[in-house]
Amino acid sequence: MTPIKNFEDLRERFKSLPLRPRVVVVNPSDQDTCTVVERCLNEKLASFFLVGLPECETFSGHMVQEYPGEVQVYTEPTLEDAAARGVQIVHDGLADVLFKGNINTDKLLKAVLNKEYGLLPAGNVLSHITAVSQPDYPKLLFFSDAAVIPQPTLEQFDAMVRYDVDICRKLGIEHPRVALIHFSEKVNEKFENTMSYVAIKENAAAGAYGEVDVDGPMDAKTACDLHSAQVKGINSSVTGQADILIFANLQAGNTFYKTISLFGHARMAGLITGTSRPVVVPSRADSAESKFHSLALACVTA
Amino acid sequence: MTPIKNFEDLRERFKSLPLRPRVVVVNPSDQDTCTVVERCLNEKLASFFLVGLPECETFSGHMVQEYPGEVQVYTEPTLEDAAARGVQIVHDGLADVLFKGNINTDKLLKAVLNKEYGLLPAGNVLSHITAVSQPDYPKLLFFSDAAVIPQPTLEQFDAMVRYDVDICRKLGIEHPRVALIHFSEKVNEKFENTMSYVAIKENAAAGAYGEVDVDGPMDAKTACDLHSAQVKGINSSVTGQADILIFANLQAGNTFYKTISLFGHARMAGLITGTSRPVVVPSRADSAESKFHSLALACVTA
Repeated sequence: MTPIKNFEDLRERFKSLPLRPRVVVVNPSDQDTCTVVERCLNEKLASFFLVGLPECETFSGHMVQEYPGEVQVYTEPTLEDAAARGVQIVHDGLADVLFKGNINTDKLLKAVLNKEYGLLPAGNVLSHITAVSQPDYPKLLFFSDAAVIPQPTLEQFDAMVRYDVDICRKLGIEHPRVALIHFSEKVNEKFENTMSYVAIKENAAAGAYGEVDVDGPMDAKTACDLHSAQVKGINSSVTGQADILIFANLQAGNTFYKTISLFGHARMAGLITGTSRPVVVPSRADSAESKFHSLALACVTA
Repeated sequence: MTPIKNFEDLRERFKSLPLRPRVVVVNPSDQDTCTVVERCLNEKLASFFLVGLPECETFSGHMVQEYPGEVQVYTEPTLEDAAARGVQIVHDGLADVLFKGNINTDKLLKAVLNKEYGLLPAGNVLSHITAVSQPDYPKLLFFSDAAVIPQPTLEQFDAMVRYDVDICRKLGIEHPRVALIHFSEKVNEKFENTMSYVAIKENAAAGAYGEVDVDGPMDAKTACDLHSAQVKGINSSVTGQADILIFANLQAGNTFYKTISLFGHARMAGLITGTSRPVVVPSRADSAESKFHSLALACVTA
């Protein structure tokens, strides 16, 4: 499989999927979400279950007529009910992807985490991956976690690496390079994340993640810029060409997200990881384009 | 005083200082450091005490001849001795600024923290400020802490705000706007930094920092981009136009530094804060230009 290197490649893959993905959208009552749904319907990229409050009709009602057989609409009295119903549809195997519309992320994730009809297999870790397309970087850059885990434990770091590597492989990046991010290169027991990083590298060497290169601790610049790595005298198969960055904590992951999107003019797509099927939770501030690419990422890796 | 808005303004101010600053350089035995020293001598911006191992002579020996009266050279048998001697010269009031050459930062800071001849007044907090010049941002952006404090306490956050506001005022930014950075806008007792932020805002309202606007928690994008703030429905005198960002922890501060410099093509200058006189500790990977601007920032705010 040719590796997906940018969002154009991602869109092409989305268009050429052998089976059209079935997507549940919870409460599509905002313009951006409906723009994404209509674009997919128009380009025959996916079919939809639209599950929301009655007022969703304003946005989605006409789609049932315009795209016969491609759209099913369910209305529920409360957002909690809509979330539960949407999650259940995916849980039952009737749909492949869950997509957040105009509903609070916490409310949707509560349904996703439901033990009975939810989407998180026992023992799995809920985390988040972001795919970044930045003009200066020659390929997609993936990172975790900008959204879910405040201060990852070793077990959570291990899960983040497994999920992110798995997603890269589904995009044709067969041998991902993983950088474990810290503010310096020193392992220091005062910083527990660096101790976890040592264990993650041992796991990698023992084959826990398949064909990968894992290195760190190193800073984000060393991971993504060969010149910076050389100046520091650091040289590995990861430095300057990382596919995946694992951040020490949520504050750092979120700062990377905000900084590279604002000052680096990057385009972003994101996904919840650890769930049995892809879950997309765009934030209010995401553009319709970003929401579309998030859905594409979900469908292509489902 | 006209506010300094970019590095060109900073250089102009450096050139027009009424008294030529006296700078101690510890172990100027690398090319970049000596380039900075020679540039300052050549432009008559500062005079120097060069304190290092005997091999520094290779780089600095000729300066004594070329710039008579402007350069004094001291050689010491060890780097520890050079650090101690350099710090002592500043401590004794013979120089205004301490500048790190080819010596490990920890080794230099150990001398800076010495109780007897060091530069940290009792009760002060050692922290770090970075000044960023980024093509898309209409003024300098200052932030703390990319280098020193791993997980600030309330007392340390308070000190960081005071030091950064003080430096802004010395640069003519009379009424700085301070954003307290977090991954969301919610105050949550599970995240102690947000509890500290509440206290910092109370301090600000009580006049602890003079004429300032302090707001947060908010993310870095909300702080620096009016459009992002508007989409989120957040509107204050800080959003979209911050002068100072205070990060939740070192991982986030360091990530901001690395990301905005690599992907945002920003130029950076940095200073230790909390000391009685400015201390500059450039990193190996900094360019000579960045080292020069750090020295300029130190001299202008000394």
